[in-house]
Amino acid sequence: MIIVMKAGTPSVEIERVTEEVCRYEIIPEICQGQHKAVIGLVGETAEIDTRQVQNISPFIEQVIRVKKPFKRASLEFRYGEHSEVAVPTPNGVITFGQNHPLVVVAGPCSVENEEMIVETAHVVKAAGAQFLRGGAYKPRTSPYAFQGHGESALDLLAKAKEATGLGIITEVMDAADLDKIVEVADVVQIGARNMQNFSLLKKVGAIGKAVLLKRGLSATIEDWLMSAEYILAAGNPNVILCERGIRTFDKQYTRNTLDISAIPVLRSLTHLPIMIDPSHATGKSEFVQPMVMASIAAGADSLMIEVHPNPAKALSDGPQSLTLEGFEELMQEMAPLGKFFGRWSKKNSTTIPMFASQTYATVRF
Amino acid sequence: MIIVMKAGTPSVEIERVTEEVCRYEIIPEICQGQHKAVIGLVGETAEIDTRQVQNISPFIEQVIRVKKPFKRASLEFRYGEHSEVAVPTPNGVITFGQNHPLVVVAGPCSVENEEMIVETAHVVKAAGAQFLRGGAYKPRTSPYAFQGHGESALDLLAKAKEATGLGIITEVMDAADLDKIVEVADVVQIGARNMQNFSLLKKVGAIGKAVLLKRGLSATIEDWLMSAEYILAAGNPNVILCERGIRTFDKQYTRNTLDISAIPVLRSLTHLPIMIDPSHATGKSEFVQPMVMASIAAGADSLMIEVHPNPAKALSDGPQSLTLEGFEELMQEMAPLGKFFGRWSKKNSTTIPMFASQTYATVRF
Amino acid sequence: MIIVMKAGTPSVEIERVTEEVCRYEIIPEICQGQHKAVIGLVGETAEIDTRQVQNISPFIEQVIRVKKPFKRASLEFRYGEHSEVAVPTPNGVITFGQNHPLVVVAGPCSVENEEMIVETAHVVKAAGAQFLRGGAYKPRTSPYAFQGHGESALDLLAKAKEATGLGIITEVMDAADLDKIVEVADVVQIGARNMQNFSLLKKVGAIGKAVLLKRGLSATIEDWLMSAEYILAAGNPNVILCERGIRTFDKQYTRNTLDISAIPVLRSLTHLPIMIDPSHATGKSEFVQPMVMASIAAGADSLMIEVHPNPAKALSDGPQSLTLEGFEELMQEMAPLGKFFGRWSKKNSTTIPMFASQTYATVRF
Amino acid sequence: MIIVMKAGTPSVEIERVTEEVCRYEIIPEICQGQHKAVIGLVGETAEIDTRQVQNISPFIEQVIRVKKPFKRASLEFRYGEHSEVAVPTPNGVITFGQNHPLVVVAGPCSVENEEMIVETAHVVKAAGAQFLRGGAYKPRTSPYAFQGHGESALDLLAKAKEATGLGIITEVMDAADLDKIVEVADVVQIGARNMQNFSLLKKVGAIGKAVLLKRGLSATIEDWLMSAEYILAAGNPNVILCERGIRTFDKQYTRNTLDISAIPVLRSLTHLPIMIDPSHATGKSEFVQPMVMASIAAGADSLMIEVHPNPAKALSDGPQSLTLEGFEELMQEMAPLGKFFGRWSKKNSTTIPMFASQTYATVRF
Repeated sequence: MIIVMKAGTPSVEIERVTEEVCRYEIIPEICQGQHKAVIGLVGETAEIDTRQVQNISPFIEQVIRVKKPFKRASLEFRYGEHSEVAVPTPNGVITFGQNHPLVVVAGPCSVENEEMIVETAHVVKAAGAQFLRGGAYKPRTSPYAFQGHGESALDLLAKAKEATGLGIITEVMDAADLDKIVEVADVVQIGARNMQNFSLLKKVGAIGKAVLLKRGLSATIEDWLMSAEYILAAGNPNVILCERGIRTFDKQYTRNTLDISAIPVLRSLTHLPIMIDPSHATGKSEFVQPMVMASIAAGADSLMIEVHPNPAKALSDGPQSLTLEGFEELMQEMAPLGKFFGRWSKKNSTTIPMFASQTYATVRF
Repeated sequence: MIIVMKAGTPSVEIERVTEEVCRYEIIPEICQGQHKAVIGLVGETAEIDTRQVQNISPFIEQVIRVKKPFKRASLEFRYGEHSEVAVPTPNGVITFGQNHPLVVVAGPCSVENEEMIVETAHVVKAAGAQFLRGGAYKPRTSPYAFQGHGESALDLLAKAKEATGLGIITEVMDAADLDKIVEVADVVQIGARNMQNFSLLKKVGAIGKAVLLKRGLSATIEDWLMSAEYILAAGNPNVILCERGIRTFDKQYTRNTLDISAIPVLRSLTHLPIMIDPSHATGKSEFVQPMVMASIAAGADSLMIEVHPNPAKALSDGPQSLTLEGFEELMQEMAPLGKFFGRWSKKNSTTIPMFASQTYATVRF
Repeated sequence: MIIVMKAGTPSVEIERVTEEVCRYEIIPEICQGQHKAVIGLVGETAEIDTRQVQNISPFIEQVIRVKKPFKRASLEFRYGEHSEVAVPTPNGVITFGQNHPLVVVAGPCSVENEEMIVETAHVVKAAGAQFLRGGAYKPRTSPYAFQGHGESALDLLAKAKEATGLGIITEVMDAADLDKIVEVADVVQIGARNMQNFSLLKKVGAIGKAVLLKRGLSATIEDWLMSAEYILAAGNPNVILCERGIRTFDKQYTRNTLDISAIPVLRSLTHLPIMIDPSHATGKSEFVQPMVMASIAAGADSLMIEVHPNPAKALSDGPQSLTLEGFEELMQEMAPLGKFFGRWSKKNSTTIPMFASQTYATVRF
Repeated sequence: MIIVMKAGTPSVEIERVTEEVCRYEIIPEICQGQHKAVIGLVGETAEIDTRQVQNISPFIEQVIRVKKPFKRASLEFRYGEHSEVAVPTPNGVITFGQNHPLVVVAGPCSVENEEMIVETAHVVKAAGAQFLRGGAYKPRTSPYAFQGHGESALDLLAKAKEATGLGIITEVMDAADLDKIVEVADVVQIGARNMQNFSLLKKVGAIGKAVLLKRGLSATIEDWLMSAEYILAAGNPNVILCERGIRTFDKQYTRNTLDISAIPVLRSLTHLPIMIDPSHATGKSEFVQPMVMASIAAGADSLMIEVHPNPAKALSDGPQSLTLEGFEELMQEMAPLGKFFGRWSKKNSTTIPMFASQTYATVRF
């Protein structure tokens, strides 16, 4: 249930209403929109009489029940106002959201050694990325496959962060590792296979860091938003959704099927920012560039790209990784399209000499 | 099997080789690329010794076996040269292909009456479309649903064609209707549900008109290209592939899942032109625009958009149809992006006042 | 809409009511159940007032609207009475239906030559099958794969029929072949790829022969019943539904996923008989036996088994074919289970020594 | 890699070989089959020369590399010998396996209160079940849905166990709860949503209790066996696989699609016992009975059935729960079929009057 306050309501009145509604044994959340404030009521609202709430103040414009099963994640809960997730990094605050420049996350599947992660960090930063991704704990189908270097990989990520000032995104698989991870990570990733690991969702809901929630392999949009709701309900509002391909009947030429229509669908359902991971989705580096271009055109807020200094020798996911040069080229192709859509920041491109007066870009295969 | 001739081979030598290889009881097909000619050998080539073929002429650069199960549809068969499908229409020849401007196909799901189809034709032409789509024979899940006006609808399409000069695309469901359809249609459509109606594929393979082959609901990329191969093998080289969404586990917010990664995948496998139909894919008009933008960015050669003067009263597929005004707006948003990618023709935009010096476009929902 | 007549209504009164309702411009269909007669009204019934119909006769017990989108195919349309499809064959009438013994259909994917089809027919008959299956026209993914021997294969099926008295089931892919097919076939098969070839469905709806409708690769239960409705609506009540595996995300160890739960689901929705084809579903002969046993236990009315004298040399679908000996063994294993469920006929077992008497169980829904 | 010892090899020689192979830095596992002993070598075996191993003893019949990616879970690893999982319960040891009677697990989705769980336990025991299932920690799509009574529910399960002697199966969602769970549970369940929660798999691999591993919603057979491999590789050989329906394109009439062909597929790939859960698979109590019958006929080793004293008021999954009477009836229908297949124990049927003697059949693979 939400209470929409009239435009121009004095803040003391908003506070008064917020206090009043506490008698219903719910938790109020104030969302200050561009024009109006909205108070979200979290908890058992089914029994609350909307007219009774309406009578609390003449400044109340409307009292609306949220019909979607995902409440705090729904766009309705913020009365149509999209949220943004601002993440402090050594290089400054980076904001994920519809009204912000595209945020580019790049890096290897796994952190393999200091040289490779630091080199990659320098190159992706120079090319315009704001975040470094790199797996310390790797969810692998086989128990005999490389499982990530764990804690020591976290130390290497810390070094890469120190060297470049990039924000760090890395995956948590086990709540027991969370304390160590949040010391280094600026954004904590929940992988596709743990999207419905509800215990873990509750735990990342209790930390202060932003959470990147990847869509499960066969999660419906609603399943996914319900998992986001677990994190929001546990008190962490900083959730970013990441589409990384779904499992369908055809796996011959791509690893998964990238559901790009999830972008406008999510935009119409939720206020949360949207990231696309074309590397895991397609599983092949040659398809990353066109899917990046499509994602930008469809309105994605962020992109996660797998980059490795030597994909042929990568310990995991080599075929889907771009080389360092490949990533630089990709960024040079993304920039004009990002600018076209008004979604390119100076930060994305400070150190790359950009093409003068480029009118046409070409889709590369 | 293909024979790659050296650059600069005299055409008489190419002809001589072509005649020589006929002794293998195959049918030769010459593809004149930008630099080199390639002779494709169609038929039982498994037993042919490539070295023996190589010895036919010193101008032969290479003899290569096509390994893909789809032969003529494969990019290998044309030695990496993409094909184009040129369709004569009253307004001139329109060419579908990677090196040509985007071709826009628009119109209603079903032809309902003369007024609506002619009005729609005028508006979509003015907005920049080159083809009018409209169903005369409709494949409907229910036998009790409107099945299309059939032959009389073909007459109305003919009137719309006469009034506007637009090319006509309409679906054939029954070989018995093919003669009547080709009198009016410039491109004959095979619908998703008939993608593996092999009898019908053979029949449209025997006509002179271009064929639009929609992907089946759960057809793999390979299934789809094998169906294209049926048409090519029957002698019709003019095949356009149309992705229209696949069936997955999630149908709550979109009708199907638009597989945009099919664009680069097809580009790497086949020389045939690629169309995207975001209307059937999403099933909702509000998601058409972002999917159009994504398709252009991913490299589509053509777009098919459902448009209806009054979607709320459409006899079929209303929820996914744009209004006439909606289509005009869409074209105005497409134009700058089409230009950005060097894929926009003057023909797409002769009668619309375009935005001056537009730098940024926004994704609309 | 259906009119349920009271038990014991005189037949003249049923006829009178049937005539009366014709004034609504619908077509009445009488279904004489075990206790009560039901008159189904086919056509535009939305506007008809049920109370007005009720008043036609005091013998009318109830007037009920059929809510399912499939009308004649629905169990409601027959007021819960399951139908049976009786097929005359040289060896006598064979009846498909819930209250009849299991009908076993066996034979090769394709009719290859006279010797193999006649030999197979003799063996499957001796083992207890009532129908011979064999493809004359084959839907193949590749245009270069064996397409069936066509008309000459029909002649060979006729010889096998003459030699054994078995009923013949063969597939129609093209309406142009239908006349020739019905000369030989006792049941005409619509293959999975043509399940939504609505033109063909209408045509087999207009013939007198029974139709076997295979489920499409990604057809929902409702899609499938709507396709059955096309045949029923065209006037042919003799439709048998055949589940043959659906397409899912896992194709590594089986070709398709056999949806055995379709049996009880269909039983609750439709009155039509249900066949299972475990050979196409699993794609591997070693999985046929357990799936046959499961199908019988779940209540299937009929089974279609692929059998070939020499699977290793089969022109199509060898890996899923049983040998002749394999089929004999299978029948010997099926018989006790068929008897256990009271679904085994003496006809199934004339030449096999059967097990001693057993207690019957019934599958409950 | 496995070492197959000749039949009749003295046990001291088997021990000697086992010690010898330790020099390869692998861990040996002895599997004593009916006729031969097999020594499995676990670890990095790629570099080991099979001929060198062969030379260790003249009693070695064969040295074979396991080619499947799942090693210890593969049937090859035990040279074709199926394993059994014996679980001690107050009522005696219950053994899951191909050569043992069907094990029936029954109970509610969630433990709601003492009365309901104890009553259910008494009834399902009397009807012939050997295990009581009941959720203390519930994985729910929504954070606002009932999440299980947690630790207090474990106490109630302990009471039900004490009252009836039934074994207890309950799900673990969080490693932090594992200690408390194993105090009560005889079998620990990993739910479908946690099938690829690799951290949790490793943890249940380190306990002594048997683990029931449910198949993930869109897990391939191989994914699933790889997850089992995680548990086996962590040292726990007591894994039971449970098919509970997969996610497909059709969710209208059943919640999931029960993949019964998984039974023979698993039987051909792995030695582990197989359970079927028709309640979660179909999501509707009316489809449970036919799916139980099909599962038995296809060769399942165990069944998990949801039972609730009052399904209409269940806190979770009511529509798929049988009533207590419904379960009694089901057991009475299962018994003759279980006996028919030689898979029914006297323990299953102490209090039900059973049918007279019958001929046994065996499911063949």
